[in-house]
Order: sequence, then C-alpha cells, then structure tokens
Amino acid sequence: MSKSQAKKSAPASSSSSAPAITNVLAERYASSAIKAIWSPTGRVGIERDYWIAIMKAQRDLGIDIPAKAIASYEKVKDQIDLASIDARERVTLHDVKARIEEFNGLAGYETIHLGLTSRDLTENVEQLQIHRSLAVIRQKAAAALLGYAKRAKQFRNLLLTGRTHNVPAQPTTLGKRIAMFGGEMLAAFTHLDELAARYPARGLKGAVGTQLDQFTLLGGDAKKVARLEAKVLKHLGFSAALNAVGQVYPRSLDFEVVSALHQVGAAAASFATTLRLMAGQGLLTEGFQKGQVGSSAMPHKMNARNCERICGFSTILSGYVAMTGALAGDQWNEGDVSCSVVRRVALPDAFYAIDGLLETLLNVLNQMTVFPKVIAAESARNLPFLATTTIMMAAVKQGAGRETAHAAIKEHALAAAAAIREGREPGMVERLAADERLGLKEATIYNILQDTERFVGAAPAQVDTFVETARATARRVKGASQIKPGKLL
Amino acid sequence: MSKSQAKKSAPASSSSSAPAITNVLAERYASSAIKAIWSPTGRVGIERDYWIAIMKAQRDLGIDIPAKAIASYEKVKDQIDLASIDARERVTLHDVKARIEEFNGLAGYETIHLGLTSRDLTENVEQLQIHRSLAVIRQKAAAALLGYAKRAKQFRNLLLTGRTHNVPAQPTTLGKRIAMFGGEMLAAFTHLDELAARYPARGLKGAVGTQLDQFTLLGGDAKKVARLEAKVLKHLGFSAALNAVGQVYPRSLDFEVVSALHQVGAAAASFATTLRLMAGQGLLTEGFQKGQVGSSAMPHKMNARNCERICGFSTILSGYVAMTGALAGDQWNEGDVSCSVVRRVALPDAFYAIDGLLETLLNVLNQMTVFPKVIAAESARNLPFLATTTIMMAAVKQGAGRETAHAAIKEHALAAAAAIREGREPGMVERLAADERLGLKEATIYNILQDTERFVGAAPAQVDTFVETARATARRVKGASQIKPGKLL
Amino acid sequence: MSKSQAKKSAPASSSSSAPAITNVLAERYASSAIKAIWSPTGRVGIERDYWIAIMKAQRDLGIDIPAKAIASYEKVKDQIDLASIDARERVTLHDVKARIEEFNGLAGYETIHLGLTSRDLTENVEQLQIHRSLAVIRQKAAAALLGYAKRAKQFRNLLLTGRTHNVPAQPTTLGKRIAMFGGEMLAAFTHLDELAARYPARGLKGAVGTQLDQFTLLGGDAKKVARLEAKVLKHLGFSAALNAVGQVYPRSLDFEVVSALHQVGAAAASFATTLRLMAGQGLLTEGFQKGQVGSSAMPHKMNARNCERICGFSTILSGYVAMTGALAGDQWNEGDVSCSVVRRVALPDAFYAIDGLLETLLNVLNQMTVFPKVIAAESARNLPFLATTTIMMAAVKQGAGRETAHAAIKEHALAAAAAIREGREPGMVERLAADERLGLKEATIYNILQDTERFVGAAPAQVDTFVETARATARRVKGASQIKPGKLL
Amino acid sequence: MSKSQAKKSAPASSSSSAPAITNVLAERYASSAIKAIWSPTGRVGIERDYWIAIMKAQRDLGIDIPAKAIASYEKVKDQIDLASIDARERVTLHDVKARIEEFNGLAGYETIHLGLTSRDLTENVEQLQIHRSLAVIRQKAAAALLGYAKRAKQFRNLLLTGRTHNVPAQPTTLGKRIAMFGGEMLAAFTHLDELAARYPARGLKGAVGTQLDQFTLLGGDAKKVARLEAKVLKHLGFSAALNAVGQVYPRSLDFEVVSALHQVGAAAASFATTLRLMAGQGLLTEGFQKGQVGSSAMPHKMNARNCERICGFSTILSGYVAMTGALAGDQWNEGDVSCSVVRRVALPDAFYAIDGLLETLLNVLNQMTVFPKVIAAESARNLPFLATTTIMMAAVKQGAGRETAHAAIKEHALAAAAAIREGREPGMVERLAADERLGLKEATIYNILQDTERFVGAAPAQVDTFVETARATARRVKGASQIKPGKLL
Repeated sequence: MSKSQAKKSAPASSSSSAPAITNVLAERYASSAIKAIWSPTGRVGIERDYWIAIMKAQRDLGIDIPAKAIASYEKVKDQIDLASIDARERVTLHDVKARIEEFNGLAGYETIHLGLTSRDLTENVEQLQIHRSLAVIRQKAAAALLGYAKRAKQFRNLLLTGRTHNVPAQPTTLGKRIAMFGGEMLAAFTHLDELAARYPARGLKGAVGTQLDQFTLLGGDAKKVARLEAKVLKHLGFSAALNAVGQVYPRSLDFEVVSALHQVGAAAASFATTLRLMAGQGLLTEGFQKGQVGSSAMPHKMNARNCERICGFSTILSGYVAMTGALAGDQWNEGDVSCSVVRRVALPDAFYAIDGLLETLLNVLNQMTVFPKVIAAESARNLPFLATTTIMMAAVKQGAGRETAHAAIKEHALAAAAAIREGREPGMVERLAADERLGLKEATIYNILQDTERFVGAAPAQVDTFVETARATARRVKGASQIKPGKLL
Repeated sequence: MSKSQAKKSAPASSSSSAPAITNVLAERYASSAIKAIWSPTGRVGIERDYWIAIMKAQRDLGIDIPAKAIASYEKVKDQIDLASIDARERVTLHDVKARIEEFNGLAGYETIHLGLTSRDLTENVEQLQIHRSLAVIRQKAAAALLGYAKRAKQFRNLLLTGRTHNVPAQPTTLGKRIAMFGGEMLAAFTHLDELAARYPARGLKGAVGTQLDQFTLLGGDAKKVARLEAKVLKHLGFSAALNAVGQVYPRSLDFEVVSALHQVGAAAASFATTLRLMAGQGLLTEGFQKGQVGSSAMPHKMNARNCERICGFSTILSGYVAMTGALAGDQWNEGDVSCSVVRRVALPDAFYAIDGLLETLLNVLNQMTVFPKVIAAESARNLPFLATTTIMMAAVKQGAGRETAHAAIKEHALAAAAAIREGREPGMVERLAADERLGLKEATIYNILQDTERFVGAAPAQVDTFVETARATARRVKGASQIKPGKLL
Repeated sequence: MSKSQAKKSAPASSSSSAPAITNVLAERYASSAIKAIWSPTGRVGIERDYWIAIMKAQRDLGIDIPAKAIASYEKVKDQIDLASIDARERVTLHDVKARIEEFNGLAGYETIHLGLTSRDLTENVEQLQIHRSLAVIRQKAAAALLGYAKRAKQFRNLLLTGRTHNVPAQPTTLGKRIAMFGGEMLAAFTHLDELAARYPARGLKGAVGTQLDQFTLLGGDAKKVARLEAKVLKHLGFSAALNAVGQVYPRSLDFEVVSALHQVGAAAASFATTLRLMAGQGLLTEGFQKGQVGSSAMPHKMNARNCERICGFSTILSGYVAMTGALAGDQWNEGDVSCSVVRRVALPDAFYAIDGLLETLLNVLNQMTVFPKVIAAESARNLPFLATTTIMMAAVKQGAGRETAHAAIKEHALAAAAAIREGREPGMVERLAADERLGLKEATIYNILQDTERFVGAAPAQVDTFVETARATARRVKGASQIKPGKLL
Repeated sequence: MSKSQAKKSAPASSSSSAPAITNVLAERYASSAIKAIWSPTGRVGIERDYWIAIMKAQRDLGIDIPAKAIASYEKVKDQIDLASIDARERVTLHDVKARIEEFNGLAGYETIHLGLTSRDLTENVEQLQIHRSLAVIRQKAAAALLGYAKRAKQFRNLLLTGRTHNVPAQPTTLGKRIAMFGGEMLAAFTHLDELAARYPARGLKGAVGTQLDQFTLLGGDAKKVARLEAKVLKHLGFSAALNAVGQVYPRSLDFEVVSALHQVGAAAASFATTLRLMAGQGLLTEGFQKGQVGSSAMPHKMNARNCERICGFSTILSGYVAMTGALAGDQWNEGDVSCSVVRRVALPDAFYAIDGLLETLLNVLNQMTVFPKVIAAESARNLPFLATTTIMMAAVKQGAGRETAHAAIKEHALAAAAAIREGREPGMVERLAADERLGLKEATIYNILQDTERFVGAAPAQVDTFVETARATARRVKGASQIKPGKLL
C-alpha cells in the first residue's frame, strides 16, 4: 500500500476503519472450492505444509533438524493470522520473509526454509495452486459436458430454424444446436485435460536453478539433492517436473494455462451468445432462479443476464490471456520479478473468472426453459423457404423440368420474401401450389413440409454421438456427475 | 458468490469465518486517493449524494417529494453498512435494488430513484468515479514530469554511453536519457489531459436513452426534463454530456480511458526497463527504501525490483486494454450487461494499477542513486570507439587522406574489438597513435577524448527544453508539485 | 526471405515463377488513397522527396553539395524499380542501404543521406505515412458522420422497439438508434481529430538522438543544426516535433495511433452488430450492391455480410492494438529494432483495416434498406407490453386505484407473455379491456397505443441535436462531404 | 478492393501499373514450405485436389458424374490463373463462386461442388492448410531443440555469472542457461505436438452442419453420406473429425492453434531476450551472416538484430492470439462470416510469423559466437561475491564462529561493492584475507574461487538430461535433424 499527499491522508495501513476492498471476481462469482485454493489463508496453509514436508525430507537425509522442532511447527500450522503477517511485511517489505518470521515466531524454532530461496517456496506453491485449480475446473467442465448432453438429448428432434449470418438458412434441431456447442466444449476440454495431466513442477532448484544451496547443505551429494527434490514433488502431488530451470519456471507455461481456460470459457460463450440471440426471438429463456425478482415495470421481461455474464467472463479471460501472453517470452536471464505483480493478479483472477463462468453455465444448462410452440411457429414461417430444394425435386418427379421448376420457385421465393417485407402474408405455399409449371397441389406441399424429419439430415444421429462421447469423457473425471451448480448472485 | 458440491460446503455467504479475499491491486499497491473513489463504501457514498441531488432537482421541478424526506436521507447517508446491503442482495439478486432498499430503510422513505432505471444510477456514478480518478492520475503524472525534470537537470552533463541494440553506439548524457523518457511521459500526459478535459457524462437518459420515464414523471414537459438533467450533471461536476445514448454510454469510451492509462504506464515502463538494464551494468540503482532488507546471502545486491514492478503494472494495464477493447464495438441494441462483470473488474483494477505504477515511479525518481564513477569507466572503455569520426577528422586536418584514415581506423577498431573479445586490452588509443597513416600523437587523441562536450551534441540543450516544458505543464495541474510518493510495500 | 530444407527448394528470391503473396488487407479491402501511402512504391517516393529536401537544406546551410547533384536526383526520383532494390538488399542485407545505393546509382552521385543514420530516414518517413493516413481516416470518419446523420434524420420518427438484454424494453425511434451509434462515432472522431492535430515528428536527431552527426557536419553550429531540422519538418508538413528522443520516437505514440483507429472501428462495429441483430429479425437489410449474386439456393436470403465484415475489421484492429500495446513501454536505452518487424506489420495493416472498415461502413450507410412494415408489426406486438405505464395512468385517471391498476396490469402482462410462449395470441389489449378494475375500453387502449409520439420521449430531439453536431463536425473536415464509398469486393 | 473519391482515382483493379502490395511477413521472412501452403496459388491447388477427391467419392457412391468429366478437371488442375479468378470475383463478388467458375470453365464441365456449400470447401481447405503448417512448424521446433541441445552440450561447463533481477546472483554455466531456454521450448513443443496429433477436421457437413444436401444428393442414405465424408477426410489426411458442427468449426480451435504458436515463439523470445542482454555485456554475439555488412561508422558493433527480430515476431504472434481469442466464443447460431476477414489475416500471418521466427532462431543457434574470455572476466569480478557462502564455511572449518564469519563477510561485501560504485577496486579477496576473524589466507581463498565446479551445483547434470530429452523428442519428428536454416534478409 502506498499513499500520495502525505499531509492529507494517513497511510492506508493505519486507517483500520476502512474495510479492505475485496476481489470482486472471488467474492461475487467464484465458488468456495477455488477460493479455498487462492485465498491468502489457503495459501499460507499450503506453504506451511510444504515447509514441513521439506523439513521432514531434509531430516531424513541427515540435516540436523530436531524432531521436536518439526512437531512444534505442525502444532501451530493452522494458526493463520493474516493481520500479523501483514504487519510483519510492512516492516520487512518482503512478503516471504514476513511469513517465515510469523511461522518461526509461532513455533519457536528457525528450521524452516533451510537452503531455500524465496522462489523455491513461491514457485512451487503457486504451481500447486494452479495444479489443484486445473483439477477443479476440469471437473466442472466435465459436469458441463453432461449438462449439454442432457439438453441435447432432450431436444434431439425438436425442429429448429438453423441460421447463418443470423438469418434462416436450413432446418436443424435444437438438440443438434446444443450438441454443436457441446462439441466446442469437448474440444476445449481435451486441451485442459492433457494440460492438467502433464503440468510439470519447477521443483527445488535454488536461486538460479542449479540447486547450489541444497548441494551445500547436503555436502555436495548430488543423489541426496535429487532425493530431496523427489520427496518434495511427491508431497506436492506432481507427476512431472521440469529439469533445467532458472529462478522461475517458464512463464509461457502460465500462458498455456490461462489460454486453456479461455478456450473453455469461449466454448461456453459461443453457446451463451446464441442463447442471447434466441431469447431475443422469444424462443427460450435461460431461466429464473428461485426468488429472483424481474423488472417491476416489465414483469414478463426475461433477460438472458446469466448468458451475458458468461460472455463477460470470457472477455475477462481474454484479458488475462493478454497479460500472461505478454509475460511469456520476456524472461531476463535466470528470472526476475517483473512478472510478480502480473501473476498475483492474472493467475487467481483467471481461475476465479473461469470458475464463475462455469458455475453460471451449469445454472443455465440446468434452468433453461424452451418454448417449443414459439420455435414451431418460427419453423412454420421459414420452412416453405427452407424446403425449396425438396419441393423442386417433388415437382421434377411430377414431370416438371428441373430448370423450369428452379426458376419458378425462385420467382415465388423472391415474391414471398418481398411480401413479408411489405407487411403482407408471404403465401409461399399458395404461390407454389398455384403455379402450373410445378404441378403440385397445396396438400402435397403441406405434406412435404410436415415430414420434418427429412429436413434435419444427420442432426439426431450427431446428437447421439455427442451424448455418448460427452458421457464417456465425463466418466473419466471423478466427481463430475455429482457437481451441482451453486446459487448465483 | 456461488458454490458447487452443495453437500460438502455451506454457501460462502454463511461462512462468516473465512475472511474475504481482498483485491491485491487495491490493497497492496494503490493509494488511498484512488481507493476512496472505488471502494464499495466510497461508491455507496457517491450514489447517495447523487440520489439526493436528483431528489432535490425533481422537487424543484414540481415533483411531489417532501422536504422532510430529503432531510431524512441526508441525515443517514453516511451510515454505510456493506454487510447489510450484501445480505439484501442475496435476497433480491439485484445489486441496485439492494442499495435502494437499504437507503430507503435507513431513511424511512421511498422517494429516491423516482423515474430512474438502474443504469441512470450506475452509468453516471461509474463515470463520476472515472472522471475523478482521471484527475488523480493526471496529477500524479504531472508530478512524475517534475521528477523527470529534476533528475534530467541534475545529470544534464553527465557523459553516458548511449546504446542502440543494447550495445554502445554514441555518447549522450544521463540527463538527456532521462529527458527522453520524460518526453515519452509528456506525450502520454497530453492525451490524458485532453481526455480528462472532454470526458462526457451519459446523463439521465432512462431505460433505452429516450428519457421516457422522466417525461412521464414531468408531465411530458421536455424543458423540465432537460433542466433536470442539467442540474444533475452540474452536481456531478461534468462539463460535457452525451446526447443520444441508449441504456449505456459507448463502451469505446472506456477503451479510450484505459488506453490512455496504458499509454502513461508504458512511458514509465520504458524508463524502468532502461533502469533495469543500467542496474545490470552497475551504473546506478533505483535505491532502497529506508528499512528495506536486502538479500541476506548477498547484502550488496541491489535489485531493481521497483522498476520491475513498474513493468509488471504496464503489462497488467495491457490486459485491461484488451478487456475494454473487446467490449468496444460489441453493443447490442440499446445495451445489455454482458459488459457488466468486465467493467466491474477492468475499470477499478486499471486505476489501481496505474496508481500503483505512478506511486512506484515517483519513488524511483525520488530514490534512484547514480554511480558516476562507474558510468565514467564505461565511457572511458567505449569512447575510443565512439569517437572515431572525430579522430578521423583530426587526422585529415593533419594531412591524412580521408579514405586512408577511414581504412586505418576501421582496421584498428576491429582489432581492438577482437582483443576485448579475447580478453586482452583493446589498446585502441595506442593502436591509433602508432599508425603513421593518421599522424596523431597519443596525447592528441587523449585530448580529443577528454573534451567530452563535443560528443554530446544537442543533449544538454534538449534537457533544458524538456525541463522547461515539463515544469510549464505541471504548473497547469493543481497540486502536482505537492505530491509526495507514498511508502511502497 | 529465408528457406529451410536447402536441398529441396531454391531460395524464394530466385523462384521468379511464384507470384508474390499479396497483403490481403491492402489488396482486398483498402482504398487507393491509403495504399498509395503505404505501398513500397509510395514509400520509396516519399523517401526520395525527403532526401532531396534534406540535401537542399544542407546545401543552403553551407554543406558542399553541388546543385547539379541535386538536379540529378530530382530527375530520376520517379524511376522506382522495386525488383532492383530488392536485389540490392539480398546482397547488403540492409534495406535502407539498398535504397540508398539504388538512388545513388540512378543519379550518379553519392550526396544523399549525409550525416544521417538509417532511423533519421525511416522514423520520419513512417511518421509521415502515419500523419497522412490519419488525415485520410479522419476524412472518412467525418463522411461516416454525415452518413449517420442522413439516416438518423430519415428515420427520426419511425417507432421502433428499443431493446435491452436483446429483448423488448421501451419504444424508441430508428433514427434515435442510428443517432446513438453516430454519437459513439462522434466521440471516437474527437480523439482522432485531436491526435491528428498534435501528432509530433521525431525530426533529424541522429543515432542516439543527440544530433551529433549533424553537429559534426555543420561544424558544431547548434543554430544551423536547428535550422536544418526546422526546414526538414516543414517539408514533412508537421506542425509539432518531439524534443528529446533517442534513436526512435516513443512507441507509446504508435499505440495511441492504433488505439484511436480501434476506437473509430469499434464505434462502427457497435452499429454493425445491431444491424446484424435487426437483419435477423427481418427489420432491415444492409442492402445489396448492384450485380451482387445472393445465394442461388435461397435467393431471398439477405445476409448482413458487410456488417459482419465491419465487426471482423474491428477484431483485427484489436489485434494491432495488442501488438503496439506490447511495444509501448519496452524501449531499451536509445532504442533497437525489436519493434521493427512488428511495426512493418501492425502500422500499415491497421490503416488498411480501418480504411476497409470505413469503406464498408460508408457502403452500408448508403445502401441499407429498412422495412417499415415489419418494424411496425414488431412494435404492434410489443407496444401493449411497453405501454403499460401509460395505460395504468389512464386507468388511474378513470378512477382506478394506482396499486390495484398496477397489480391488474402485471397479472395480464404475465398471462399474455405466457400465452405467447405457449403459441397462443397474447390478447393483451383484450385482457386489459375486459378487466373491470381498470375501467378502460378497448378503443381507449388502442387510442393510447396509436399515439406513438408519446412513447418516444426525447428521441426525435436527440436526433436533431446529433444531426446538427455531426454536420458541424464534418464541415470542419475538408473534402468529407465529397467522399463516395468505393465498390466492395 | 474499394476506392473513395471516385472522381480522382480509377478503381485499383484497373490500375494495372501499380504493383500489388505484398505480404511482408510472407515475402520477407517466411520459408517456401509455409508459403507454398498459404499462397493463393497453393490454396487453389489444394482446393482443386479436394474437389476432385469429392467427385471421385461421389461417383463411387453412385452419383452421376462422368469419368470423363473428372479426367477433364484433372487435366487442367494445374492451370492456375489468379488474374482470371480475380476478374471473375470482381463480377460475382463471391470468391468461392469465382473459383468454381474458373475451374469449370477450364474443364468444360460443371460437376464440382455438388451438394456443397461454400464452407464445405473453405473450412476443410483452411483446416488442411493449418494441419500441414502445424507439421512444418513442429519439424522446425524439433530442429530448434537439437540446436539448443548442441549448444548446451558445447558450453556445458563454461562458468557463467547467473543473474536474477539482471544483477549477479549465483554461478551457473552457459550450457545450463541454454538448456533452461531449451527446456521452455520443450514444454511448448509438447503442446504443439499434442495439438497436431489430435487436430480434428470439420468434414463435409453442409450449410448448417446437418449434411442435408448430401442426404438429398445420396437419396437420404445416411450410410452413404458417412462413407462420402470418410473418403474425403482420408483424402485430406486427417485422423480425427468433429461430429456436431454448424456451418463452421469452433473458432476456439483457431485460438488454440495460434496460442500454441505463440507459446513456441515465446520460448524462443525468452532465449533471444537473454542473448540481447548478454550481447550488451559483450559476452557473446548472435553472429553475422556471411556477406552481412555491419555499421560502416562502427565496424566492430555487433548488434543482436536477429534476436531482436525474434522478440518482434513473438509480439506479432501475441496480436494474432488477441484476434483469434476475440473470435473464440463469438459464434452466432450455426455461424457467419464476421470471422472471415480476421481469419484471412490472422491464420496465414501467424504461420508466416512463427516460421520466420523459427528460421531466425535456427540461424542464431547456428551462428552464435561466445567470448569465453569475457565471460571468464565477468565471473572473476563476481565470484568473490557469489562464493561468500563457501568462503564462510571454510572459515568455520578453520575455527571461526559462524555468526562472526557471516558478519565479517557481510561487512566486506558491502565495502567492496561500495568501492566498485565509487570507481575503486573491490579488493574483495584482499579484504577477506586481511580479516583475522576469518583466519583465511589469500591463497586459500583463491583456491576456493578457482575450484569453480563446486559453484555450479547440478548445472552440468541438468544439461545432460536436457540434451537427452531434446534428442529423443526430435527423433520422433521425421526430418527434424535435416532442417537447415535458410538465409535471412
């Protein structure tokens, strides 16, 4: 904290009356699972476990740390007093040192952090936060896949006007449209899944990555140094580790993490964007939460606010992609802290954002309400235009020339469209039936239009394939099927 | 706040034991001036003043609001209880409604927010926060100009090896180098200054921007509607207003604001980057704060951590540029809230970041310590190479042919450089003095090298011009010369 | 150009059969005005004029350059042979040197570029390209303002369903909606206008910005150096110049330029996005160009392809914002060429993109076709919902209690909305007329609904204000009213 | 192409004299392998092969396409006349239609593109371009890994001053530093490798993704439709395909592709940045190409221009990440062309940029020249500071108290550092030897300092591990070891 205009205002640290400004993404949107990982309290807890694990390993390898000391640290490790740590930092101006002093003060020993540089602590702890967060997000993304699958199956055969350029193009089904967006999530999930599986830890590498201080501590015994690191990595739960690093792990790895989150978020945003479009046509609503108060002036107004929020989160993630993308490639020598403040912001906030996004998505998938009658009315308006190819082929079967039929239908389509634009009824079917060149009765045409199955091609089969794949994918993710969306603010 | 895995965890709202996660940018880096504008408490205060101003204006224009009601609101307006507002929002799921209910509850009346849509409140209040923040940042940027000017003047004549491609190129002075970066800040300041001066408010425009509800409230009297808005804008302190808006003001305006902040931050980052380079050469240090503890293992190590932090803040700002740049151009119809969560994050956080950056910059400008002897030693190593043109012309005056002299000098420069790379003394002067083609004595060459003034061209004069311009600019900014940098964490 | 797999392929330079890959933005979308500034030929032309101007100024100041030499350069300056220059560069591996040699070769002299470093040429020439391009874009943006004004005026009173969250919210007019987007363009124009007016040149500053080589050339006479630079700046047409620069001008200035272009593009993209939404509702079309072939399968389909393209250009610009935003703040010492390849891409391509965007926008503004009947039908569907406040007040006048009326209307609105969602007629007016609590006849309600003027509030007046401002702004921009949009590909 | 100011200038299309503006990234930097994939000519060739493959498959499945027609198309497929296609597009204003007409015109048939929508062509062809380009980039990234491995091995034991915060921190080896950056490339390669292996094609899905037109064409036979698509995918060489798509494949996939390229580029940029820093210290040079002309004024100046260029390419890639990141999540319904112009720019240009970057990197790895004597001199200056821990432990062995020794050394380190900053000799060893508290002779200390192996910890072993992993990785990539860097411009 800093202050300008020293005369006017006391330093913020002393103004105990002003409540701290909270992190909006964490406090308004993120779930407790992610918050527990990234909260200051959560982080201190992870750090202390990590220090204790290192002490135990160092002791096992012959370094002179009394068992009693370790026991003392273990006893006090849950006494996390952020205010006290904060006060220490305002003296030392060094955050890691403040947390070391606090833990030592509580335990009455000074045997943590032996042979460690600050980054031996912070890099690994932050990677652990990332690793655990990836697991949480992976689980929720898998839960979202199940949500898409459920809805795709539900609306597998519901005829819908497919749109390109936002105007009617060809028929599809609502289930197919949902499967399409689910398919985008599936592709994003694959990247996330691969990344979580191979995400490597930096390990205990020392100030410039050569492990010099551990070498010194362990009498230059390379094997012991390697065993120490292996024990620590096992404690952290990593299956992969980086080999030759400097003070820091490569920041392009942070970029891949945040990019993978954006990819997941973008998949959701495509879906949310189309729901916003459909809500504007009155075809569906994203649903209301219980107790939610709509507009008092317009009580019937059903805004796609959660879908808008999903799009907002996706935009936020693109900003953290930019931040981490700018850190990537900018390492100087063995590393420095020009990335520090950026990572303090971008990493937790990106996870809060994707978590809030997925919570919102799970809610939408759970609550969305479709209006099949409105969708059917839209289809009825559009089908005569969309079915022209089929009608033409029926005319040809009746003996019409292909080119003649094509010309006739084009003429009527243009006329019907013009009628709509002038506020008249299109009368497309009537126009077609009245044209002797086609030789089709009105009833025949209506029969064609009612046989909607023929207009949707592979859509239902694609839904089936998606549902199967999504479920198989989610089955590989422990706990995914138990995820329930939280209540949104 | 939302939660997954309903069974495992209680809703975050009820877990009163977990301290809220704070906003790192605000709490670690920003000054109280900016925090006061953007803190939840600060915002509620601004809102209440705004509601009261509207009530007064509405009453003046004949709307039936009792004076007693207004007095009641005024009496309670400083009773800001965020927890109570938060609890209300968790019921209504609507943040503005929660704050209305709270204020009404305190006052015992329901006469605020008459004829207003939520955005009539939030857009104008957020613009006011932006407008006031721009003023704070403008003041600090002006203070930074004074800091650059002071340092540029101090080192106006200190010969320095100018570098291009990070290798020695031509002599300059340290003051000139500082003036160069100050000049970048000056250009950025100009944009910020113009923007702050013309930044326009949305005004009281209603749900879709037509002022319909105020028309209804004021009996369809367009003049009264206009007078109401004018009074409100005057209260807000805006000199410019937008005319035809929808529910929201154009988001490309947010983009310009954040871009202008990035421009200011980037100017500082260019300076900080070069200080980091110079620190790596041992030419200077950014300085230590009093009480700051250096590395215990390497007590003499003077890290340019604050300069690194400035670069970090600049990277952060580029991320908020990306977020607001993505909102710009994405308005749907009269507006929606897909930008809401983005702006909740990007706007305050961008101001916290630029504020923290400028606080850091002011500290660096204040504390930086230059090592003239080290700079001089570097110059001595490089000058024989950098002065070759001058030496050649001296040789020509002594009768050497120009092309001959050029070839001779090139030969020696390459040989001297090769010597350095092989760990030998370059002996450039000796080589030149020994070459009969040039006809120059060693003493003559050393004389040339010692007359350093001739190598710096317009540098000192440019410093003078910069100092003058910077001071004149800062004089236009009230309070700029009183700004003192706060203590950094 | 480089190549891998040396055995398989000859160097690209020798494969004369493969046509060069063209710049898509330039060749598909940009106008000849912008292309003439940034094309290699155009650039060489600007450079040669610049060199000649410097020679003349140097000669005036006493440097020994024969008049005959200058005449020789002037004679050959239009003989621009890119292939020859290219061949020279493949030998020297230095682009500026190649262009110097070519010009010297043509003229038979070697008197250009005296005392100049490469950047004395390239920085100023590129700034000149930017400066001239800003003028072109400023003119087209002003022309767009006229286009918005024309359309806003045309549809000043056309009642339209205003939308928030993409669902019907309150009535507005189409003219007002267009004025709203025009207002966004106006705000962006203001930044562009200010920037173009103050854009400062780097000037003739030498290798590290100290003007050393010009000092040497002009015998150390500071006044002559200043006069030389002033003459050159005058030739370039700049009214402002930077003072203390290094080898390069501050890259944060490039960022401001590209940001200003994105701001203009974003304003257009907001408009285009809403047109895409409206086209999806069938309310209007962006228009067809003469001769344009629609979909043969669906001849009536009117895709908003140009509006989509505008959004695409805006996205492209956000990418160049990212590139120049990353260069900003990253200067090392007096400068280097890590920005070179970035600026070769981002600067011309940003101008091609904004130029193509504005060309497209001018076309859309020119060709868009509105379907008032469809708009009216939409209004008719929505007005009974949107007019509830007015209807309630009519009921109160007839003696109904306010709360009673409010409850009754809310009941009917929800029922009517539910009916729509179930595929039935809403019958809102009938429901209201049948409710004795309100005491309103069907005819009375229809009368209210037909008096549409009362629903649009300040919309027409806002249109008038916008039109006036837009026209006044455009009048200040020479040639803006003569701009005609080119034919799009 | 479009034009403004119709009176002044003829349409660009007719100005045959003006040479087309070329794509800088392609023509200056990219290799022929990538250019062949993305050039207009290359693309037309891919398209024609694709059309022919579809015709053959359709004929196999019973559609009435004469063998003679197919033969005719095959005969003319290499007659690619871009000017003719261009002229057609200026009539139809539809690029795909123009290319269809051209091919039909050449062959004298109209049997291509049966039942295809434009996107059935363009999506798959563009994905094929991406797929093939990924293979090229993967090969060059693997070649770069070999380059890092070679250099890491070469300098495995060369003692180097490791730096954090850009100031000396602890010893390392140059080989270890190179392995560190190689390790970053290895991590990026892994993502690229996984992505290339699973990259899925959209397939032949029709206008809204339901394959309706192929169903119609193949008599509603779902199996035949599936077989047709399978044959086409096999022709394209894809092993994976998307299932439920709309008109387009998910744009978040483009984002992953470009992100993966940025990740690779960033790994190179970290390396290049540190080389630029080292060049500034005179420790090495990136090398000169044969024939390259240095600065004539300063012939010994060795600029790290290629390394700067690598950083520039990385910045460019971050811009294309921004563009594709903005497209991701923005799909409307089954798709539109708002992404079209963006992808026309961002996809090829991102591949040109990464290709140019890798070509540059391969050159640098090939040509870099290290100055061991300069590196050794730097180490000699720094070692007395960096070796303090070791010296302290030697003193303790001699009987000094640990705390006493620590205090003594700290005192001397600060004094020696102060001496350096004041331009005096640090005399660190002398100071230490003279201090009786430590009890160490000067010779003892020099012995410690000369035994450099003990200061580099695990560095050499890390090099070995990296070299082994890099080579094993590259062995999996066909052709990687044959890649030779092309000549740079």
